[in-house]
Amino acid sequence: MENFSFKNPVQVEFGKGKEKNIGEYMAKYGAKKALVVYGSDRVKKSGLFDTAINSLKAHGIEYAELGGVKSNPVLSKVHEGVKIAKDFGADSVLAIGGGSVLDSCKAIAAGACYEGDVWDFFFAKEVQKALMIFDIITLAATGSEMNRGGVVTNEATKQKFGIDGPALFPKVSVINPELQATVTPEYLVYSASDIIAHSIEGYFTATKHPEIIDMYIEANIKTVMKTTEILLKNPDDYEARGDFAWAATMALNGLTYVGVSGYSYPNHMLEHAMSAVVDCAHGAGLSVIMPAWMKWYKKNNEAKFARFAKEIFGLDSAEAGIDALKAWFDKIGTPTTLGGVKIGEANVGEVMEIIVRDAPKWGLPQYDAKAVKEIFDLAK
Amino acid sequence: MENFSFKNPVQVEFGKGKEKNIGEYMAKYGAKKALVVYGSDRVKKSGLFDTAINSLKAHGIEYAELGGVKSNPVLSKVHEGVKIAKDFGADSVLAIGGGSVLDSCKAIAAGACYEGDVWDFFFAKEVQKALMIFDIITLAATGSEMNRGGVVTNEATKQKFGIDGPALFPKVSVINPELQATVTPEYLVYSASDIIAHSIEGYFTATKHPEIIDMYIEANIKTVMKTTEILLKNPDDYEARGDFAWAATMALNGLTYVGVSGYSYPNHMLEHAMSAVVDCAHGAGLSVIMPAWMKWYKKNNEAKFARFAKEIFGLDSAEAGIDALKAWFDKIGTPTTLGGVKIGEANVGEVMEIIVRDAPKWGLPQYDAKAVKEIFDLAK
Repeated sequence: MENFSFKNPVQVEFGKGKEKNIGEYMAKYGAKKALVVYGSDRVKKSGLFDTAINSLKAHGIEYAELGGVKSNPVLSKVHEGVKIAKDFGADSVLAIGGGSVLDSCKAIAAGACYEGDVWDFFFAKEVQKALMIFDIITLAATGSEMNRGGVVTNEATKQKFGIDGPALFPKVSVINPELQATVTPEYLVYSASDIIAHSIEGYFTATKHPEIIDMYIEANIKTVMKTTEILLKNPDDYEARGDFAWAATMALNGLTYVGVSGYSYPNHMLEHAMSAVVDCAHGAGLSVIMPAWMKWYKKNNEAKFARFAKEIFGLDSAEAGIDALKAWFDKIGTPTTLGGVKIGEANVGEVMEIIVRDAPKWGLPQYDAKAVKEIFDLAK
Repeated sequence: MENFSFKNPVQVEFGKGKEKNIGEYMAKYGAKKALVVYGSDRVKKSGLFDTAINSLKAHGIEYAELGGVKSNPVLSKVHEGVKIAKDFGADSVLAIGGGSVLDSCKAIAAGACYEGDVWDFFFAKEVQKALMIFDIITLAATGSEMNRGGVVTNEATKQKFGIDGPALFPKVSVINPELQATVTPEYLVYSASDIIAHSIEGYFTATKHPEIIDMYIEANIKTVMKTTEILLKNPDDYEARGDFAWAATMALNGLTYVGVSGYSYPNHMLEHAMSAVVDCAHGAGLSVIMPAWMKWYKKNNEAKFARFAKEIFGLDSAEAGIDALKAWFDKIGTPTTLGGVKIGEANVGEVMEIIVRDAPKWGLPQYDAKAVKEIFDLAK
């Protein structure tokens, strides 16, 4: 194990009905004025918004609101949120939605405590000061509910970059698997792909990766695969929904990265450019690029790919494990070719240019034009 | 998954040389006057005590000290510590040692903020207020470095009970596997037994136990078994020592109990009475009682015992899994019969009486005289 520091102070409130207590949780941390952020009107139609607001009111918390956050959330919306938060004098943000809403909230929380443009923080400096962050997470995938990171797209520069810092840990995250049962089958399988991507980045790329961490990661992947299949058949299986949700949280709360060194996020780098250009779902882009990247990268870590094949699929070769993952993506119905996310002759060049342009920002300058083309050729 | 709340704010500083920064870590939390607690003079002879004290001094932290905490730490020593902490006006405690030292510190930290006898808290009420707790943990087993519990023996009543509460999370725990390399082979195997016990209590007794949690626990057990064998051959294998240490921490930091319901700690209840009477090492008592308890309890959860056999040993029957665990304890050299911890005709009656007397306090009134005798007969 490499030396590490680990501290994750997030209070997780997991289970049925927990969203009804959100006002109580927030009041305990001293929240008095909250900016409530959400995506589509579904959270209003479902009654979830009212449930949360009633709880806020019951605990004397005033609120302003910002709706309309979209998937692959954008910087302009964050700017809008920052302005509202400042004008309102918010001390806290409450995200009601999935990772896009929560990550927007994290950026808003940082921007509201900063004089300049919040974009200054992205891939640049840690956020040390932010409004208090709370969330009711309605889509299991992001992991953002129990970590200090977030991702937002700058539409002007087509940069889908990350923000990070100790001030961005949510104070309280509500995870009620019942609220996630209305997720469409498409977003369920995209989420599965996303969680697997969070799991394999460090697993395959690290120069040092303790075996105990391997096993935790394999547990998360196995859980996601098993429960995805159950949920495709029966979306209301609460136990499967709960295990799926917890695997999502555990896959990116830091515990699968302790003691690990020399890792990077190449699949995320590749996918972020894809969704910055074609606005595909993050998980869909990942299921396209992961098998291609794995084939391309395998030579650098043969033993680990062999382990993956054995542990996840009971197969005896590295190559077979990659094929099996791709076949599983096909089986559950998340795309595995560039065409599946509408990337082709017309726009693949732009995607690849963005990757090569921003690779140094990701700490991955070795992903030059030649390397990126090789990977994308494998994803055709 | 059952509904749960999870929050674990401990800052873990893991790795080589981290103990040199203890003063810095403590100063960041505002510590100015610390009671430093340790066990034998070994921490002084090894230079560890001076390393820590020099770091405290460098950060302007005054200290008082209390040595002589023994294994199966006792209430009288805690009382001594409470008095020193109060007289000194300590704002913090620093444990340098294993679980006994840290658990004594937790009780001292609670007692120093309480007018009455700290024993009032044991198995009775949560500790909401305590001095700040810091530790440099020199033995991997307890898990106390990343949880809010502790165990102390009341010599007068022969009750080895637990103290618990949100104020008992350490602020910072230093885990340097190098400092644990001098542990004797005996204490290494007792520690292995202890970690396995922490792992199996919920695993076997819970009425609801999500499969993802099963897998995390199995990862911890496999890690402990593999690394124990490596360390018995080569105590200086840093990677194995690190994985062993982290498995110990992960086995009892709460993450293997989230979403789990209806669990209890029967093996700990049985062992605590054993060590309260004969003062055996906790892990030694556990390796004696676990296989016996497993044989006795198996009928209540056949499927889970079958899973254990399969996952841990690759065996096809519940019975065979239990036998294999016992054989493994024999192989590594931790005792598996009552005689191995000096329990026999002369004192087994007293042990069993204590168990039956205190079983209701553990929430386990079903462990009556008949049940306890059946289990102890299986441990002969």
